[in-house]
Amino acid sequence: MKVEGVPYRTIWVEADGRSVGIIDQTKLPHLFETIRLRTVEEAAAAIREMRVRGAPLIGATGAYGLCLAAARDAGDQNLDRAYRLLAGARPTAVNLRWALDEMRKTLAPLALPDRAAAAYRRAGEICEEDIAINRALGENGLRLIEQAAARKPAGEPVNILTHCNAGWLATVDWGTATSPIYQAQERGIPVHVWVDETRPRNQGASLTAWELLQQGVPHTVIADNVGGHLMQHGKVDLCIVGTDRTTATGDVANKIGTYLKALAAYDNTIPFYVALPSPTIDWTLADGLREIPIEERDGRELSHVTGRTEQGGLATVRVVPEGSGLANYAFDVTPGRLVTGLITERGVCAASRQGLSSLFPERISSRKGS
Amino acid sequence: MKVEGVPYRTIWVEADGRSVGIIDQTKLPHLFETIRLRTVEEAAAAIREMRVRGAPLIGATGAYGLCLAAARDAGDQNLDRAYRLLAGARPTAVNLRWALDEMRKTLAPLALPDRAAAAYRRAGEICEEDIAINRALGENGLRLIEQAAARKPAGEPVNILTHCNAGWLATVDWGTATSPIYQAQERGIPVHVWVDETRPRNQGASLTAWELLQQGVPHTVIADNVGGHLMQHGKVDLCIVGTDRTTATGDVANKIGTYLKALAAYDNTIPFYVALPSPTIDWTLADGLREIPIEERDGRELSHVTGRTEQGGLATVRVVPEGSGLANYAFDVTPGRLVTGLITERGVCAASRQGLSSLFPERISSRKGS
Repeated sequence: MKVEGVPYRTIWVEADGRSVGIIDQTKLPHLFETIRLRTVEEAAAAIREMRVRGAPLIGATGAYGLCLAAARDAGDQNLDRAYRLLAGARPTAVNLRWALDEMRKTLAPLALPDRAAAAYRRAGEICEEDIAINRALGENGLRLIEQAAARKPAGEPVNILTHCNAGWLATVDWGTATSPIYQAQERGIPVHVWVDETRPRNQGASLTAWELLQQGVPHTVIADNVGGHLMQHGKVDLCIVGTDRTTATGDVANKIGTYLKALAAYDNTIPFYVALPSPTIDWTLADGLREIPIEERDGRELSHVTGRTEQGGLATVRVVPEGSGLANYAFDVTPGRLVTGLITERGVCAASRQGLSSLFPERISSRKGS
Repeated sequence: MKVEGVPYRTIWVEADGRSVGIIDQTKLPHLFETIRLRTVEEAAAAIREMRVRGAPLIGATGAYGLCLAAARDAGDQNLDRAYRLLAGARPTAVNLRWALDEMRKTLAPLALPDRAAAAYRRAGEICEEDIAINRALGENGLRLIEQAAARKPAGEPVNILTHCNAGWLATVDWGTATSPIYQAQERGIPVHVWVDETRPRNQGASLTAWELLQQGVPHTVIADNVGGHLMQHGKVDLCIVGTDRTTATGDVANKIGTYLKALAAYDNTIPFYVALPSPTIDWTLADGLREIPIEERDGRELSHVTGRTEQGGLATVRVVPEGSGLANYAFDVTPGRLVTGLITERGVCAASRQGLSSLFPERISSRKGS
């Protein structure tokens, strides 16, 4: 996607063919700065410090981290050390572990002199696969936006509500929930996006708003409290959100607060879709509420807010009195019964075992007994 | 209630018998500062600048504003000017207009020399009436907490979720939604309060957390996104919120986001109560969603956050990129069908015309035709 009119991906190999460029997402939306990663240590730090975030982008950064290690010393000992360093940078990130295993599988059988080049090739493929999946699910989601547009007077924008950042900044390109939106914009379908601020980390207000602004997509930032009111008053045509993990039965774990928006959409008969690359489906799970553990994060994310001062610098202020307790659950689970459909790279299906088995028969058939 | 162990009301006549003390609520929770109002202009400014807020407290401040005017010059011309000045300070505040009319009714028939003393007397009564109503509704709400406690293992705290600040800071004393909580604490019933941060103005994190902290009530501040997750996991026993305006049919206008919590409570079969002094019932309205206009406020409340810096001062930071649209709806309407009951000074009733008519037959009977 574009930044100040210039096409960017969220991660790229620099002109030297070796070092890796990323956008420092901790500075957004106030400063656009790129960072050049030269060592596996720098790649691990970028993941740990959340300069890159979003499951697919973390995976890609891990893959390139192994490239940086292999370029320096492609021996097994060094690669093992690099693997452990990267895997430990965000221990719960499933995509990261997957990408590192892919890299290891590729490199292990090769002679040392061939490993570095093969590493960059495989990391590049991992990025291209992510882009291809996101583009495909975007095309499937685009049809839902086209249908919504057809139900409205010609020229009126389709109002789409989204939560958190399931945008291109979370992936290598296109994003998941944003991919149908960007593709609608390319086809000239007028869209307007309601952007949930997404407390406590404000990924909506800081990242989604910023990337929509860069692509010129009309949007409005709202407090997380507002979506229900908008839906009651016909101001939302459909909701599209992302997911961190979806069960084989269509229960959706996503950023905390997603469940509340799904309830409001259901109460007002507004379509509520979840956009997901199929690797985020956990085929081993049947009950999201019972089986998906919910990460509790540092209360400081809630008690302190960082933003730009009048003078242009960044500052952090405390908004909760000292002495009050804090609880910071990062995700919630939306039961499949509240989800209108899942938008995948293979098509759109019901958020149920039957729905998913219609698109991914090879996955479900192996678990017939469950 | 107490501040640092000392009993306070939110408004009082100072020892000189004339000037009026208030708490500067714009500095909370970071600084506790009181202000002495000496003129009607200062009283109007305190209302306009939201140093006092909450419908009952705004009404009381308006009443004392007229006292300050009458103490200086009790002539009709001066009182009319004072009335207009105060009424214009928060034009949509129904209680403010009501309190000013009460004062005018009291003073108009009196000789000039008697007016100032009568004004302070009537303003004092308005405060005492507010306190009496809140104490009574608190006793009615207390029984719901006692029932919830009886359903739990002995000694386990009753977990109550609240939204925004319907606390003593919004009233003269006790608060509305907090009154049952403070009374439960006085009786030794263990309670724990989940405090919704309540974006965008953060009245939960700043005011409710602060006043619970001062009373020693155990509480935990959460992002507005979290309540649904807590309810799914059995961590909320009941919800109690306040209201700005309730229809004769039990639809409840309250701080934006209330509707989302009511949906989650309904979905998880958790009791959802609204605490309201009967003056907030608008007997002329039958359909809250269609008939209650929702105030849109300055987007800056959303784009900017004020808090305390590490150095101890207050600072304001921007959290939304320049160029993004902002929408800031202040209230939403929760349909009566999602409300378990209304807690009033006369008792608890269903959120319906029948429910309200059982407690307030004199109001409903006059509108039999509707």
